[in-house]
Amino acid sequence: MKLKVYADRMSQPSRAILIFCKVNGIDFEEIKIELMKRQQFSPEFKEVNAMGKVPAIVDGKFKLFESHAILIYIACAFPGVADHWYPNDLFKRAKIHSVLDWHHSNLRFGAAKFVLNSILGTALGIPLNPQAAAEAEKILSASLQKIESFWLKGNGRFLLGSNQPSIADLSLVCEIMQLEVLDEKDRIRILGPHKKVQQWIEDTKLATRPHFDEVHKILFKIKEYLHKQPSAGASSDSKPPLQSKM
Amino acid sequence: MKLKVYADRMSQPSRAILIFCKVNGIDFEEIKIELMKRQQFSPEFKEVNAMGKVPAIVDGKFKLFESHAILIYIACAFPGVADHWYPNDLFKRAKIHSVLDWHHSNLRFGAAKFVLNSILGTALGIPLNPQAAAEAEKILSASLQKIESFWLKGNGRFLLGSNQPSIADLSLVCEIMQLEVLDEKDRIRILGPHKKVQQWIEDTKLATRPHFDEVHKILFKIKEYLHKQPSAGASSDSKPPLQSKM
Repeated sequence: MKLKVYADRMSQPSRAILIFCKVNGIDFEEIKIELMKRQQFSPEFKEVNAMGKVPAIVDGKFKLFESHAILIYIACAFPGVADHWYPNDLFKRAKIHSVLDWHHSNLRFGAAKFVLNSILGTALGIPLNPQAAAEAEKILSASLQKIESFWLKGNGRFLLGSNQPSIADLSLVCEIMQLEVLDEKDRIRILGPHKKVQQWIEDTKLATRPHFDEVHKILFKIKEYLHKQPSAGASSDSKPPLQSKM
Repeated sequence: MKLKVYADRMSQPSRAILIFCKVNGIDFEEIKIELMKRQQFSPEFKEVNAMGKVPAIVDGKFKLFESHAILIYIACAFPGVADHWYPNDLFKRAKIHSVLDWHHSNLRFGAAKFVLNSILGTALGIPLNPQAAAEAEKILSASLQKIESFWLKGNGRFLLGSNQPSIADLSLVCEIMQLEVLDEKDRIRILGPHKKVQQWIEDTKLATRPHFDEVHKILFKIKEYLHKQPSAGASSDSKPPLQSKM
């Protein structure tokens, strides 16, 4: 039975799973769960993931959610996945776990909160909150600085000084890619100072082409939609919610 | 060379690592990094963990931080650790990763934010924030409910229906244990409705005795200190910061 991936391409961890499966030639079925239509709360999807979140997978009788756990499972369960994605080596693997754990309360927390409170809330019917956005920007910028100065140190093009990407590169780069929906001045202010991060994003795109660009197309549609809306400072109550164009 | 564990017993992930090493008979050295004295920012400790956080380990030349990554590393690197802590089985291991990943943005986020904003801030010179505490309580209570109804479902005494504890049981129970420092009325309101969670905490204590109680002694000293202070509603600026009694 084919692997089923329940995903919404608007969600950055969903995109990471989809790209990973495509890059590794895994035979899978993408099942769209549209967050804008609240399909993650449907009784059918609750059977897949009682937490009501995407991404989630079903592999035969086995169900799993949480994107890092899914990436690790797929890397281990499907024999065609090259070792560099999730090395067998105890020490390399431990470092990848460390990056992935760090991701949760740092890069993910800062990026998701900033995007929600500075622009995406508009599409979700949630009022924008400039103070929350400012707090989130501090965490986001500090996280990018740590990636630049610590996780990307060494001569390799990828995290932990590696010359080939791991699941951590894919997960973190997909997280950062959501900044594409921001106003250009915000995006440039936040990403501009981090030249190594910018190069690493390009290297990760290159290493996962053409799937990376294909799966990320939706972001540019969202950006177009968001920037057609009245200015971000206004109350968002009167704006129609964004319909996913997947 | 002996494994070095850099920890402050006031930190719940530090306690999880210490208990895990002791229960599994691992020969290690506990190196105290006192958060109250800001020792995590010392140049010496920055050589161990550039992020300035505990716990961290050094095993020979290998350095690692993030508690989940450390638990997995120790379980794999030290041959004496029983399989139930971090099973070799692909599916069981994947489920443990899923619990650990879920922990970050749910139980950990809610518990740490609630404790900080309802009482611990007093000792850290940070003003208490009842609104932030109320928001955190929602996340904490929802997380405990998910543990009760989802992660503890099945007939086993531990997470995922298991009859023996895994690193996920230890990590999550240590997180919940910090609620011991709360006012009794807060602790009872939050934990009271979750009978299975209470039984699971007792079962995890039993499975890791006497080390669990020994490592947690500090919590009761902190509680005693905090509850001798003027009432929590007042500004904490004038109170002397808590000195660790480790």
